[in-house]
Amino acid sequence: MVEEKEIVANAGQEQVSKKGAKKQAKAAKKAEQKAETAANIAAADAGDGAIDHAAGRYGLSPMIQSQEKRSERVFVAVHELSNHVGKGLLWLRGRLHTSRAKGKQCFLILRQQSSTVQCILAVGDVISKQMVKFAGNIPKESIIDIQATAVSVPNKIESCTEQTLELCVEQLFVVSQAKAQLPLQIEDASRPENTDDAEGLNIRVNQDTRLDNRVLDLRTPANQAIFRLEAGVCRLFRDILTEKGFTEIHTPKIISAASEGGANVFTVSYFKDSAYLAQSPQLYKQMAIAADFDKVYTVGAVFRAEDSNTHRHLTEFVGLDLEMAFKYHYHEVLHTIGNTFTDIFKGLRDKYSREIEAVGQQYKVEPFKFLEPPLILEFAEGVAMLRGAGVETGDEEDLSTPNEKLLGRLVKAKYDTDFYILDKFPLAIRPFYTMPNPDNPIYSNSYDMFMRGEEIMSGAQRIHDPEYLIERAKHHNIDISKIAAYIESFRYGCPPHAGGGIGMERVVMLYLGLDNIRKTSMFPRDPKRLTP
Amino acid sequence: MVEEKEIVANAGQEQVSKKGAKKQAKAAKKAEQKAETAANIAAADAGDGAIDHAAGRYGLSPMIQSQEKRSERVFVAVHELSNHVGKGLLWLRGRLHTSRAKGKQCFLILRQQSSTVQCILAVGDVISKQMVKFAGNIPKESIIDIQATAVSVPNKIESCTEQTLELCVEQLFVVSQAKAQLPLQIEDASRPENTDDAEGLNIRVNQDTRLDNRVLDLRTPANQAIFRLEAGVCRLFRDILTEKGFTEIHTPKIISAASEGGANVFTVSYFKDSAYLAQSPQLYKQMAIAADFDKVYTVGAVFRAEDSNTHRHLTEFVGLDLEMAFKYHYHEVLHTIGNTFTDIFKGLRDKYSREIEAVGQQYKVEPFKFLEPPLILEFAEGVAMLRGAGVETGDEEDLSTPNEKLLGRLVKAKYDTDFYILDKFPLAIRPFYTMPNPDNPIYSNSYDMFMRGEEIMSGAQRIHDPEYLIERAKHHNIDISKIAAYIESFRYGCPPHAGGGIGMERVVMLYLGLDNIRKTSMFPRDPKRLTP
Repeated sequence: MVEEKEIVANAGQEQVSKKGAKKQAKAAKKAEQKAETAANIAAADAGDGAIDHAAGRYGLSPMIQSQEKRSERVFVAVHELSNHVGKGLLWLRGRLHTSRAKGKQCFLILRQQSSTVQCILAVGDVISKQMVKFAGNIPKESIIDIQATAVSVPNKIESCTEQTLELCVEQLFVVSQAKAQLPLQIEDASRPENTDDAEGLNIRVNQDTRLDNRVLDLRTPANQAIFRLEAGVCRLFRDILTEKGFTEIHTPKIISAASEGGANVFTVSYFKDSAYLAQSPQLYKQMAIAADFDKVYTVGAVFRAEDSNTHRHLTEFVGLDLEMAFKYHYHEVLHTIGNTFTDIFKGLRDKYSREIEAVGQQYKVEPFKFLEPPLILEFAEGVAMLRGAGVETGDEEDLSTPNEKLLGRLVKAKYDTDFYILDKFPLAIRPFYTMPNPDNPIYSNSYDMFMRGEEIMSGAQRIHDPEYLIERAKHHNIDISKIAAYIESFRYGCPPHAGGGIGMERVVMLYLGLDNIRKTSMFPRDPKRLTP
Repeated sequence: MVEEKEIVANAGQEQVSKKGAKKQAKAAKKAEQKAETAANIAAADAGDGAIDHAAGRYGLSPMIQSQEKRSERVFVAVHELSNHVGKGLLWLRGRLHTSRAKGKQCFLILRQQSSTVQCILAVGDVISKQMVKFAGNIPKESIIDIQATAVSVPNKIESCTEQTLELCVEQLFVVSQAKAQLPLQIEDASRPENTDDAEGLNIRVNQDTRLDNRVLDLRTPANQAIFRLEAGVCRLFRDILTEKGFTEIHTPKIISAASEGGANVFTVSYFKDSAYLAQSPQLYKQMAIAADFDKVYTVGAVFRAEDSNTHRHLTEFVGLDLEMAFKYHYHEVLHTIGNTFTDIFKGLRDKYSREIEAVGQQYKVEPFKFLEPPLILEFAEGVAMLRGAGVETGDEEDLSTPNEKLLGRLVKAKYDTDFYILDKFPLAIRPFYTMPNPDNPIYSNSYDMFMRGEEIMSGAQRIHDPEYLIERAKHHNIDISKIAAYIESFRYGCPPHAGGGIGMERVVMLYLGLDNIRKTSMFPRDPKRLTP
C-alpha cells in the first residue's frame, strides 16, 4: 500500500513539470491495472498523449493514513453553500452521486447525506480534456474531494437540493473509490413508491436486495431521514422521562431463567452451563423499583425467538421500557406513559419536520394525528365498537390482528386520532403477574397503546404482594420454584408499581406510516436474516 | 386476597365506633395469623384489651390494587420538608428505616432513597398505647404511609439527613410489609469501609451477600448515588456527542459470525442454526459510517465470554461506542473523544456533586483530577517513563496490568491528572483492521485512554481500503472468506474513519475510585454469576 502513495496523481497544489506529469500518469496507469476497481477510470494520459495542463489538480488520492493534518483546508457543507457564493475557492468532500461527461464538459452531482449540488468541469485554462474524462469515469458512490467556487445559476436546478447555485470545479481527487458495478443504484432505491413513471422506468429495489446491501441502501434520503428520526424518538423518550424524574438503568441481557415461561427464548451457552437471552427487562425494572429507584427507564436490546415472519416482528429489537412506583392508582402511570407519547409526537412534529418530509418524498403517508391528552378507551368499549361494526368477539377474547386494525380505523373515524390507549384488558389473556381489576375480576389493571391501529406498547400494574403473586402464579400453573427469585424481590417491601415496554422500531414504522419493520431497523434480525 | 381488604385496619379518615374498632381489630388479628410475614406486628387489641382511641388511624393497608385514586392526598418528599414546617398535616410515603419504641414513645426514621427524617409517636390524645406498640413492631424496610406535622427541633438530629425538623405522626399505615428477617441490614451495607468503629461493631456485608440480595443492597445511599451518577455518565456521553453532530444508532447483538476471530464469544442457538453474541458493535458502527451517517454512537450491551475473574472484567457490560469519519488525520477523532471525556468529567463534577459526596461517605476516594485539554502521550513515551522507573519492557510489548497501573501513577506524579491518552500503540499488538502508522511501521494509528491507571477505552483509525484490509488480514493469518462481508462494506466508497469503545461500568468505577466493577453494574454478570 505504501507504494501506492507514489503512483497516484499528486494531490498537492503545485503544478508539476511535463516530465513529472508523464511519469506520474504512467504510474497512475500501472496503479489502475493493479487495482481491479480502478479499471474504468481513465488515466491522465488517456486519449492523444497531449500535455495535460491540469495534471496535479486531479487523480486518485493516496489512501488517507493520517500522513498529514492539512488543517489549513476548511471544508464546507453542501447545505451551507448558499453562504459561500462568490467567496472564492472552497473545499468539499462528498460522494459522487452521478456524473455525465458531454464533449468538453462534465456535470457531476456531489452528495452529502441528503444534500446534493451540481458541479461542472469545462475544458479551459484550468481544466484539461484529460481531467474531464477522468471525472466522467469515476465510479458512482466514490468519495471525492473537490476544490471549487460556488456561483449562482439563473435557472433552478431541479435535480439537486441546492437549486440556485452550482460549483465550478478546479481540483478533483478520489479519496475512496467505489466498485464500478453496484448491486443497487441509489436512484432506484430512492424512487418514490407509489408513483407511476410516465417513461415506464419503474425500477424498484426489493427489500432483500436492500438489506443484503444495507451500506448502500442506507444512503437514500429516506433512510438517512428514518434513522435520524429514530435517534430522535430515543432522545425524546429519554429527555421527557428524565424531566419527569426517571433514572436510566441497564439490565442484563443474559439471564439464568427464561423470563416468561420458557417459550420463544434463545438459549446461550454460558461457559459450562446454559443461559437465556432476556425477552424483556421487566423483572429488572421491577427490582429497581423494589430497590427504591422510584421511576426507571431502560433502552436496550430485547430478544424473541418467535418464528414469526410478518411485517412487524423482529427476533431482536430495541425496547424502550419504563417502570414507575405510584401512590394509589395505576392510572398515575398510565397518564405518564400516555403523555410521554404525546410529547414524543409533538417533538417529532416540531423538530423532525425535515426528516418527515424526506420520508414523504419516497413513501406516501398521511400525517400522524394525535389528541392531547390522549384518548383512553376501556377494552369493553373497544369490544362494543367492534360489535357495532358487525364483528363477533368474546368479552375475554384477545384482539386478533385484523380486529386490532379494524378498531384502529373505527377509532380514527370517530375520534380523529392515530394514537389511543386501550385500558383494562381481560385478566385471562394477560401474564400471571398482572394485577386483577378490583371492581370486576374478569378484567385487569393492564393496557395496550396503539399507533395507526397496531400495538406498540403493552403494560400493566404488576402484583407487588409476594403471597398474591404466588396465588396468581399457581392459578396459571406456573412452577413456583422457577420464579422463586422473582417472588423474593417483593419480600422486602415494594411500592405498588406499573410500567410497560415499547417497541422502538414499531413506533418509528407506524409514526411514519411505513409498511415493514425492516425499514426502521438498521440491521434487522428475523428468523431468516442474521446478516449483515 | 380480596377478603384481606376487609380484615385490615380501616385506612379511611373517619373515627370508628368501639364495636367497629373491636371487630376490625379482631379481623386484623386474623389477617396476621394468615399472613406469615405479618406475624410480628402487634394487632390493635394487643395488650390489655383497653379501648383503642387511635383505631382507624393505623394498621396494615389493604393491598393497593388501584381501588381508588385518592387524588386529594398530596404527598411531600422528605428532602422538601423544610418548606412545610408548621404548615399542618402532611402525607409521606417511604421506608421504615429504623424504629425504636421506648415506653410511651416510638421513634421511627422514615427513608426515601438517600433522605431520612425522624418521626415521633407519643401516647396522648391522638396516639394510643396500641398504636405506639404497632409502630414499634413494623419490620424494617416496610413501605409506610404517614400523616404528620413537621416541627422544628432545637438540637440537630445527627442520624438523619433532615437534621432541623421531625415529624409528629398522626396516622400510620403499612403499605407493603417487609420480612422480619432481612438477609442484610441496610445500616451494615451502608457502613463506611475504612473507618475503625470504636465500639467494635465493624459489621460489613460481603460482595456476594450484597449481590445475592441486590434489591436490598441497592437501597444504600452509596448505591443510590452510584447508579444515578452512572445514568449521568450515559446522559452526558449522549448529550455531548449529539451536540457535536453525532447520530445515535442501534446495532444487532445477535450476529452470524464471531466479530473478532471467534475466541471469547458466546454461542446462541438461533432456530435451526447457531449464532453469536456481538463482542463489539464495531463492524456496524463502521457500516454506518460507510452508509453516510458521518458520526455515530451507540450505547448497548457487549458480551465477552472470557473466563476472567478479576475486579474489572464482566461477561456482559454496557459499551459506549462511537465512530467518526474524519478528513485527513485520526487525531480529529482522538481529540473529539478526549474532549468528550473532559466534558463528561466536568458535567459529573458540576451536576453530580451530591452523588459523589454520598459515595464518599462510604468509600474513601480522592477527587478525580483531569487536565483540559487532556494529556496525550505517545506509547513510546510511556515505555520510556516505565523504563525510567526501572521496568524492563519491549518497544512492541503490550502493557501488562501492573505496568499499566504503574504508568498511571507515574503520569499522575508528573502531570497531576487521573485521565490521559496513550497514542500510537505498537501495530503488532492491535487487531488486523488497525491502520498502521505511516511514519513508522512498528506503530499504528491507535490509542487507549486511561482513568486512574486503568484502561477504559480502546480505539483506532480503521483501515477503510478493502485491498489493504485484505493484505493486513492475510498478514494476521485470518481466513478472508470469514470476513468477506466486513471487507465488502468498504467496496462502495468509505471515508477514512476512527472510533473507539468505552466500558461504562469501568468509567463509573474509576471516576469514583471504587475497587470492583461489580459495584457499578446494577446486576453484574461474570463467569460465576448469572443471578439475580
